[in-house]
Amino acid sequence: MTLKEYVKHSIDSNFKGELPFVYNEKRVKKNYVFIDYEETEKKIYYLKTGIVFVEIEYNSNGKILDFFFENSFFASYSSLLLRKPSDVRITAFSDCVVEVVDYEELTKSYETSLIANKLGRIETEKLYARKVKREKELLTKTAEQRYMSLLSEYPQIVQKIPIKDISMYLGIRPESLSRIRKNLIY
Amino acid sequence: MTLKEYVKHSIDSNFKGELPFVYNEKRVKKNYVFIDYEETEKKIYYLKTGIVFVEIEYNSNGKILDFFFENSFFASYSSLLLRKPSDVRITAFSDCVVEVVDYEELTKSYETSLIANKLGRIETEKLYARKVKREKELLTKTAEQRYMSLLSEYPQIVQKIPIKDISMYLGIRPESLSRIRKNLIY
Repeated sequence: MTLKEYVKHSIDSNFKGELPFVYNEKRVKKNYVFIDYEETEKKIYYLKTGIVFVEIEYNSNGKILDFFFENSFFASYSSLLLRKPSDVRITAFSDCVVEVVDYEELTKSYETSLIANKLGRIETEKLYARKVKREKELLTKTAEQRYMSLLSEYPQIVQKIPIKDISMYLGIRPESLSRIRKNLIY
Repeated sequence: MTLKEYVKHSIDSNFKGELPFVYNEKRVKKNYVFIDYEETEKKIYYLKTGIVFVEIEYNSNGKILDFFFENSFFASYSSLLLRKPSDVRITAFSDCVVEVVDYEELTKSYETSLIANKLGRIETEKLYARKVKREKELLTKTAEQRYMSLLSEYPQIVQKIPIKDISMYLGIRPESLSRIRKNLIY
């Protein structure tokens, strides 16, 4: 789905015409880095096809913090919103097609455009609801329950990602995850 | 600051006139429950004065998930956004003055009102940025670092809240927090 189709489909069924900001399609290969540590984010990406992942630096390694799938928006949001260097790196997990929105442009359109604000509000609400769910899981579920939940939500991802990255996503040590996996009956 | 003043101050300095939704001031005493487990959230609250806290049920106890302070918005957002029963309880930590917005009203105003969408977008961005920060801390900082960060951000709160609640907020056992506190030189 293109960005324009997505806005009509998920934001406002009455939407027609053009979006009030410029955006450009970009095709990137697997392992392309959209934004790296210490860079300041200036773009928001609409992911048309593909998967990207977000890493955070931890003990001088990068560990996976989040995934984004097609028909969603991604960026180093805290870098964008707080206008400071990014503490995450965002990488293409597969070949991707994205539509790239310039954040300055978007911010200008926020001043006067209803559809831009609707889009920004609804997408941020979705991101927020995901983070709240994740926080609750980190605080109240066991590592095993969190792993099962990940497995049922993203089965293909779990198979493709190294144990050390999954364990970091779950907030546990790789050895603990290996133990959990051994105890599971597939 | 009233809700109207807040909108002019933090959302749009050109704002004047009336907000496009109804809201009512309400004064509540300490320990008042704004929303309880299993209730479906229908309101958003602007906190004019006071402090509220958000609990989640865990092993049949309520444990603190978050705090909100004056000049911010709170609600059981996942209940609102996903229209399902709340898995959190929100309680007045002190006497509070709130301005209560009906969510149905707000949703209607989102269809056509630029200022309502700006308000919704910007407040959700703030909530999201807080949760991202918290997620990173849960995944990459030690319990001691998280406790120090809490202590420097909310010193009065830390003094007023039982160790068992703080430890849950930090995602560790009460005994671990007692150990951390003993090792700190005040």
